[in-house]
Formats: sequence, C-alpha cells, structure tokens
Amino acid sequence: MSTSTHNESTPHHVVIIGGGFGGLYAAQKLGKSPVKVTLIDKRNFHLFQPLLYQVATGSLSPSDIASPLRAVLAENQNTSVVMGEVIDIDAQAQAVKLKNNLEIKYDSLIVATGVSHHYFGNDQWSEQAPGLKTIEDAINMRRRILSAFEAAEKTHDRQFKEALMSFVVIGGGPTGVELAGTLAELAHRTLSGEFTNIDTKKARIILIEGTDRVLPPYHADLSEAAKQSLIKLGVEVRTSAMVTNIEDHVVTFKCGDQVEQIQAQTILWAAGVKASAMGKVLGDRIGAELDRVGRVVVQPDMSIATHPNIYVIGDLANYAHQGDRPLPGNAAVAMQQGEYIAHHIEAKVKQTEPAKFKYQDFGSLAVIGRHEAVADFKFLRLKGWLAWFIWTFVHIYYLIEFDNKLIVMIQWGWNYFTHRRGARIITGKYLQVLEEMEGIRIGGLSVETREAVEVA
Amino acid sequence: MSTSTHNESTPHHVVIIGGGFGGLYAAQKLGKSPVKVTLIDKRNFHLFQPLLYQVATGSLSPSDIASPLRAVLAENQNTSVVMGEVIDIDAQAQAVKLKNNLEIKYDSLIVATGVSHHYFGNDQWSEQAPGLKTIEDAINMRRRILSAFEAAEKTHDRQFKEALMSFVVIGGGPTGVELAGTLAELAHRTLSGEFTNIDTKKARIILIEGTDRVLPPYHADLSEAAKQSLIKLGVEVRTSAMVTNIEDHVVTFKCGDQVEQIQAQTILWAAGVKASAMGKVLGDRIGAELDRVGRVVVQPDMSIATHPNIYVIGDLANYAHQGDRPLPGNAAVAMQQGEYIAHHIEAKVKQTEPAKFKYQDFGSLAVIGRHEAVADFKFLRLKGWLAWFIWTFVHIYYLIEFDNKLIVMIQWGWNYFTHRRGARIITGKYLQVLEEMEGIRIGGLSVETREAVEVA
Repeated sequence: MSTSTHNESTPHHVVIIGGGFGGLYAAQKLGKSPVKVTLIDKRNFHLFQPLLYQVATGSLSPSDIASPLRAVLAENQNTSVVMGEVIDIDAQAQAVKLKNNLEIKYDSLIVATGVSHHYFGNDQWSEQAPGLKTIEDAINMRRRILSAFEAAEKTHDRQFKEALMSFVVIGGGPTGVELAGTLAELAHRTLSGEFTNIDTKKARIILIEGTDRVLPPYHADLSEAAKQSLIKLGVEVRTSAMVTNIEDHVVTFKCGDQVEQIQAQTILWAAGVKASAMGKVLGDRIGAELDRVGRVVVQPDMSIATHPNIYVIGDLANYAHQGDRPLPGNAAVAMQQGEYIAHHIEAKVKQTEPAKFKYQDFGSLAVIGRHEAVADFKFLRLKGWLAWFIWTFVHIYYLIEFDNKLIVMIQWGWNYFTHRRGARIITGKYLQVLEEMEGIRIGGLSVETREAVEVA
Repeated sequence: MSTSTHNESTPHHVVIIGGGFGGLYAAQKLGKSPVKVTLIDKRNFHLFQPLLYQVATGSLSPSDIASPLRAVLAENQNTSVVMGEVIDIDAQAQAVKLKNNLEIKYDSLIVATGVSHHYFGNDQWSEQAPGLKTIEDAINMRRRILSAFEAAEKTHDRQFKEALMSFVVIGGGPTGVELAGTLAELAHRTLSGEFTNIDTKKARIILIEGTDRVLPPYHADLSEAAKQSLIKLGVEVRTSAMVTNIEDHVVTFKCGDQVEQIQAQTILWAAGVKASAMGKVLGDRIGAELDRVGRVVVQPDMSIATHPNIYVIGDLANYAHQGDRPLPGNAAVAMQQGEYIAHHIEAKVKQTEPAKFKYQDFGSLAVIGRHEAVADFKFLRLKGWLAWFIWTFVHIYYLIEFDNKLIVMIQWGWNYFTHRRGARIITGKYLQVLEEMEGIRIGGLSVETREAVEVA
C-alpha cells in the first residue's frame, strides 16, 4: 500500500470522514498544506457537543453551538466539503463510497465519526430513555422535559402529576451531572412561578450512577464536591445504583441487595457509548481490530495496522499507547489527534520524519450549576466559583466561530442575571408528544382512571 | 346569553384561544383587569411571524423569534396558560373542549387562531411547494434550500444541477418579496465561495406574482421600487403570471396566452391563506357566518352576531365595518383588536360603556434586502435606506421579550457586517431530504441517467 499515487499536478488527497473535533481540527491544520482535502459529513455543521445539554435544557439554541462547516473552512482554498453518508470503504481502490453512486478516491483517509449511545444490550430502553449526541437528540429532550411540565399543569391526578414531575438522569459522568444540575435549575428557578396548578420547585430530579461516586474519572474529593453541589441544587444523587430495567416509565435499579423503583415520565440516558457505524465498516471491510465497544484499535501514529494510510482519530479510536488505559473519549483528545494527524500526513507528503503523538492532559472540567463546577488539573484541584469561571471561559474560547462566541456569551450573561432560559420552545412533534404523555401508562396506572378536570 | 355568571368570589373568566399577536396582546392588556384569564395555545411560545422568513433563510434561530408564553405572562397573577388543542366549543355550556378530556368553562371567549396556507383547491401542491406559517415550516424551508445547494455540489449532471440551483417563490406579497430578496442575498453573497463545484452566484431566484405588480396593496410607485430592488439583487420578477400546475418539480404558469415552465427543485409558497380549523368549528357548532376563505364575519365589537360573549380577532376575523374592504390580515390589526377586546371586556365587567373599535393604519413596511425596503405611510412614501432603517427599528421594537431584542440586534449586526448567516444548519430529516433530492425526478429527467462522479 503506497501513498505516493500523486504527482505534481495531482496533489496528495486527504479524505476526512466526520467534522467533529477530530476531523475538523485535522482539516483546519491541513488548510495550508500542499495537499487536497475533502471533508465528508452527514451534517452541514460542526457541533460543539460539550454544550449540547444546554440546548436540551433550553439555555441555548441549536445554532448557537453549531457552525456551518463550509463557513468554518471557507478560507481554505485546498478544501472541499461534501455532505453525505459514507457507506463503504474500498481500500484496494483507495475510495470511499457514498449513497447515490458518489465515489471519492483518497491517498490518505482519516476516519473520525465518533460514538453513539450504548444501552448495554437493552436497546428497547432507548425509546423511553433517549440519549444526547445530536442536535435532534437535544431538541427531543427539550421537548420531553418542557412537555412534562405542560402535561403536569393540566392533570389533577396526583400520582400522575408526580410521575410527570419526576426526572431521572441515568449516568453520573460529566453529561449526566451537567444535565441533572441544569434540570434542577430549570425546574426550581427558571420555571418557578410560571405555572398555576403545579409548583415546579417540587419537581424531583434523580441522578443514578452505577459506581460509588459521580464523575468517576475525577479525584475523589472533587466527586464529593460535585455531589454536594448537586444536592444543594435539589438533585437526589443515587450512587452504586445499577439500572436493571426501564419499562412503562418506571426505572428499576439495584442498590446492593435492595431493588428500588421510580416512576418518572422523563428518563434521560447519559450512561454509555459505543462506536459509530464506521467502526463496523472498518472491521468488516479492511479487517481492523475492534475493541469491546467497537472502537478501532490504532497504532501509535493513529493508523490501522494493516493499512498505514487509513487513520482513526477521536472517540472512535482506541489509542492504548499512553498510560495504562486507552485515552478517554473527549474533545481534548480528538482535537490533539486531529492536529497531530495533519502534521503527520504533511510530513509524509514532504517525506520528512513525522513526530510521535503524545496526548497532553490539561485536566478536566465539569459544571454542575451556577457558580458550581469542578476542575481537575492533577497538580491543582478547584471547585465552586473559580472552577465555574474557568469552565465558562474555556467553553467560550473553544466555540469555533466568533459569532457563536458572542451570542453564547450574551445569552449566558442574560440567563445568569435573569435566571431565564430563552430557548425554552417545544418544536417538532409538539402536540403529538404532549398528547401521548397525557394518555400514557405509568407503571400499572391506567390513564383511563384520570378524571376530566377544569383548570382552576 | 349572559356574561354575569360570576360573582365576587368567582371573577369573570376570559378564555383566549391562540397566543399570536391578537391573543397575546389581549392577555397582556387583561393582566391587571378584575378578571381571570386562561390563554390556550397548541404551542408553548408566541411566534413573531413577520421574521419567520429569516429563520427559513438561516439568518435567525427559531428561538430568536419565539418567546415562551409562560415567561411573557409570568407577571400576570390572574392569568393561566394551557398548552393544548381546542377541538370543540359548547356555547350552551360556555365551555371549550381540549383533547384528553379537558374542559374549560368561560364567561367570555376570544378566538384568535389565525390562518394557514391556501392552495386554491390544489392541495397536492403543498408537498412540493411548502408554505411558511410555523417554526416547523421555516425549518423545513431552510432544510430544503440548504440541501439543494449541497446536492448541486455533488452532481455533475448539468441539467440536474441547474434545477437544484433554481428557486421559485410563488406570491409577490410581503412574505414572497422578503423570501426572494433574502434567498438572493443568501445565494449570491453569503454562500459565495463556500462551494467547490458550483458557483452559487449563478443560482436563479424567480418570483412569480399573479397580479401586475409585486406588493399589490402598496402604492404603485413603491411596487415598482420593490421590483427594481429585487432585480438589483438578482431576482427574476415575473408579474401577471398565474401558476397553473406544480408537478415533478416543474412550475407551469400562464403569462397572458403564453404558457411557461420552470424546472426547480425548490418551490416556496407565499400566495394564499385560509382560516384555521377553529373557523369551521365556529361555523358548524354555533352557526357563525364565514366568508369565502373561512374567516368569521364579526360585529363592530368583534363578537359573533348570535353569541355576544364570543369574539374573533386577528387574521381569523373578517371585520368589514371600516373602509370598503375587510381589514387586512396583519400583525398591526391583530394587536389593535387584541387590545381593543381587552378594554371592551373590562368595560362590560365594570358595566361601563365600551368604546368602539377603530383600526389605526400606521402604514406598511416591507424589506427586500440590505438597505432595500419600502414604507407606505399614506401621507409619506419611502424607499431604500431610510425605509430599511425604519423597518429594522420597528421589528426590533415589537419583539416581545428583551432578550429576543438583544440577540436579534446582535445577530443582525453581525450578519450585516460579515454577510454571514449563523443559523445555516440543516436539522431534522437531514440525510433523508438530501438523499431524496439526489434521487429525484425533475420534469421528465430520470435520475438514473446521472453518472457516478468523483468530486473534483
């Protein structure tokens, strides 16, 4: 397998699949290199996933955290963007295949398609406990959360009302913690006083985590600090709690020997991820080695062992050449791998010696709520105000486009001083979802027993 | 029929159906009155419809022009908001019925549910020529417009590419003119330079109007000015052109005796409206008189002749007691009727003499593009810069919430100086729409003839 199928008139062609942090940073770095770049994505925008939970809870609009890929890459004269889905890779012909007969040849291929939800073999849970990976997921969560309050306002059945005002978040990692904290602020502060028949301050937000503490990768002190912050916000934190079933809007979980159940209309999944579909394509078609959750095991230079011109970066890669575990799936790793692979390919094209990849861990940040965050910089651990301030600054800084930064800053400033959340709109299947909710079975309770009521 | 079913302990109950300009302004005015108010809407937000075309063309986000009804009315202690769909009115029992067994009794009822698209008996056109009334309509248009460029970038079939880059707007009223002008700016300025295989400056935008000039209700000089502005922006303006068919992405229209056809992937409908479903309910259930498009003919005090405590306001009302034609269906009329009806009901409750309604026509404004607008103040007619400035100011001023005003001002400022449009994201059925477009028949042209291409 050779990468030198190009000559002076046809520059080395780098094809990148996926415009997330890994793919986009690779494309940006290659913008001035003597190569041709084609970035393929199913979406026409880069999504700033770390803030997706703020769309799900009505603090930000979808386009606040989405930057059109064409706009971001417009300055790069060597770069094309193709919107479409890659369905196959032909390593022999050095081509990727899209639907509708489109075939794109490559000299180097970078696969950066990330991960999707994982229900650990219980895919039937996905219907009642949706996850949060895409803009559509966030809009779906926002619709469910806000519709639950609307339905609660309309019913006089006490048990049904309680179930509508119960929100279970499964998974105590950063996304779960951020979702639970923001949900508590939404219910207990933002919505407070806007309803006639319900007191949104009485909404229950329950965070369920399987291990013995929230934010497991963080230092134990910070996990404890995060837990206390959540409790202060009114979140019920259940650790060492293994979810065993989700059915009829009832979450069943085990705490040691004890089995507990919670009736909740709204159940949100923030617990597990698995490789996106491209992992399987790489496994099936070019024999790439996959790990337990389908991620692709890569070489020290991010390539696939049998195919030195095919690279996998970001969440889809299992990179086990540093530390005693594979690198975590987060934006920082993906960005660094994206920039590395750009340098690596440029070195190959220029026939110089490529550098080795080394992940620089600048630490972790998670936000729980207003003034409440934790920062684990290894040499320094912060919590509260200062961590919250750093979190805010870092997230604004890394938003790709300047107009996103400006709008998000203003929106956050406004939300901060008023406790309001401007993007609390229910869109899409708005009536359908509300009416399904009103006609739903929760546990053994049949809705037929609910009486017709007059709004007080 | 009596409105005095209340006493000291149970205040007069005003039920409002619809939270548009008419319903919301009525609710706001009644906020300090000695009545109880219930506002029912299918949506949880008030929509600033005059700017919907900016969502459809990627300039603004949905939540920029949507204000949560509960937030807007939070200060009004006498007001409840109910999210749901009214399916029936029982005038005998003085109650409205919602789905799922909810019944709400009223002393006075205000119906303000507006209008929806009208295809003049050709409902089959709606599939290929969607209209613009809801947030979902705008997101759908945005998806189609942006996807057409994405599909054009991918095909090498010249005829297919031309059809993908042709955009027909049907209807030369304010919405059609605004859509066509913004589409031209989007294609010829914003997207210019972002694609590799197409020149978006060559996109055709064709505006088709049945009468002999655009903006028919305006003074003829302003219609001509608007037409010249559109032409300057690169829009092809076809007046006296009656659309006779829309099929296989071909628009057929008659100009005098001549029949013409245009192949266009994207066809947008801005031509006609008819009464919303509540019009029929009022006609069927309480014998209200309906006009040709289903609007409810109202008395001078906005009530229905046979039911003095049921009022219809806004676009759904046919109010023919001023001038030689019914009042036009626009935000200004709806707002004034909303405020009037609040005063009217308050006067009835206080048993004082209600004032008469008189619509104050402050004139009309329509924007065509950057620095291009027309303003018809009757005594004064403006075009160009000054009209554009007034248009901008008026639209910011009337946005319901302060955070919307702030965000829209900044977004517009940013768009103005950079020619960018930050909300250019394709959401919802993103891949499905793109793939359908790529596999579509246009006119007699079968897509099977398109060859597989390699992206250059």
